[in-house]
Amino acid sequence: MELLSEHACFGGVQRFYRHDAQAIGLPMRFSVFIPDTAPGAGNTHGKRPALFYLAGLTCTEETFAIKGGAQRVAAEEGLVLVMPDTSPRGANIAGETDAWDFGAGAGFYVDATEAPWSSHYRMYSYILELRALLEQELHLDAARTGIFGHSMGGHGALVLALRNPHLFRSVSAFAPIAAPSQCPWGKKAFGGYLGSDESSWQQYDASALMRSLQGQPAPFPGGILIDQGLADKFLEEQLYPEVFEAACRDAGQPLQLRRHAGYDHGYYFISTFVEEHLRFHAGQLRGS
Amino acid sequence: MELLSEHACFGGVQRFYRHDAQAIGLPMRFSVFIPDTAPGAGNTHGKRPALFYLAGLTCTEETFAIKGGAQRVAAEEGLVLVMPDTSPRGANIAGETDAWDFGAGAGFYVDATEAPWSSHYRMYSYILELRALLEQELHLDAARTGIFGHSMGGHGALVLALRNPHLFRSVSAFAPIAAPSQCPWGKKAFGGYLGSDESSWQQYDASALMRSLQGQPAPFPGGILIDQGLADKFLEEQLYPEVFEAACRDAGQPLQLRRHAGYDHGYYFISTFVEEHLRFHAGQLRGS
Repeated sequence: MELLSEHACFGGVQRFYRHDAQAIGLPMRFSVFIPDTAPGAGNTHGKRPALFYLAGLTCTEETFAIKGGAQRVAAEEGLVLVMPDTSPRGANIAGETDAWDFGAGAGFYVDATEAPWSSHYRMYSYILELRALLEQELHLDAARTGIFGHSMGGHGALVLALRNPHLFRSVSAFAPIAAPSQCPWGKKAFGGYLGSDESSWQQYDASALMRSLQGQPAPFPGGILIDQGLADKFLEEQLYPEVFEAACRDAGQPLQLRRHAGYDHGYYFISTFVEEHLRFHAGQLRGS
Repeated sequence: MELLSEHACFGGVQRFYRHDAQAIGLPMRFSVFIPDTAPGAGNTHGKRPALFYLAGLTCTEETFAIKGGAQRVAAEEGLVLVMPDTSPRGANIAGETDAWDFGAGAGFYVDATEAPWSSHYRMYSYILELRALLEQELHLDAARTGIFGHSMGGHGALVLALRNPHLFRSVSAFAPIAAPSQCPWGKKAFGGYLGSDESSWQQYDASALMRSLQGQPAPFPGGILIDQGLADKFLEEQLYPEVFEAACRDAGQPLQLRRHAGYDHGYYFISTFVEEHLRFHAGQLRGS
């Protein structure tokens, strides 16, 4: 891990790192916020609770650090924030940067199986690799790690949590792509990265995953939190929170899906509700 | 005033506007945050207290709105935030975009007297024009308006407040260029915009203005608040807070100059302390 820069922030430090990612086969960047490390601070001794934030289309490891406004509450709660990039960079695949919703900045948190993407676009495995790396390097507490995200990253957070509830003990999302197999963004991404056999898509579709859990104990008995703006221009065509809501209901998974009149898809919406997400995760992680 | 976009945020609304600015002779953009306008909100009836934020070099009307994290506290305090751009745009003056510290994005809140800049670069008068415009259009309370800013904008805020204490009733700054006549940024800007006669620079130098007030009542008896990071790479060469500090002491102007170990010049620093600035202004404006 190479430290690229660091900035004092709310008594802690916002850092930017680069490292060689094995799942990707290329260097990747990520950022972290680490609360107060002074002697006497809550998490100096022993391991730190952590919260991964997966960003949306076109974003980087810097977006949430700049726009999210989360460091204040993370400092109060003693939570490490981990902010990965949204795709490999510099894979030099033809067409990689032609579209804003596929390729660079649009990794969709899947392990691509279709050439040429399969050589580097393995963001699902990468997030798990990063989690294991930081458990060691930053002394994150494996038993107290949560995950959340926005839009494409909300999809990623739900999928990673539902498939790995032993690794991510709390999960929430802002305006997630909640049924990607059914929406244009998801069909384009899954078709490109995973191929035309839609059965392979289901492992990356939060609503399909939730439906597959019917009859089993709810993976997150403390509930899942989702905030959705009703002035979000992508809501009807791309997000489908009602599909995930129905799947949770059928599976007996508690879900708090809050619909907010007037709010859109951007970071003014996210920053408004980010405090409640951090409090939610901190409470869940304390109880786990 | 043409409304370009708006975003729900913390129960209020973040708006972006464009208007024809007479002082500039060109269209200008600015943004505002307006707290909750629902019936029953604190400032629905009558006029609203407001706080102008002047941004630094290379910034726009969007920078503080995205990175400052101020809307939460502004909503709590019922403060309108006004965020102007940092220079004329599209003046089409040769060399206007050659440097990041002069010309576009670097208006320095002065009224240029040197050709060709004097035709459009009149940011000092523009801020006063915008204040008067919004007093009418957004029902800002002329008796409860404060001003603050960062770096070049901290300089602008101090100068505008010291020259117009009847218009701006409270003032604070983050890492201001506190003695621009003496630092490289200021010498370049003032030389270019105002010419080589340094006597004309003094009206735009906060430390010189403060020195000129010796023997008069302090213009801000409730005090001036300045935060300065000690890991700020521009501190020694460009900012000179100690010069302003000495001028305040000699003039009997109360000043709270807080030096913060470890903090740099950027928005991770600003966002850490922005809540205290908003509380400071809200308290000053309530008392005025």
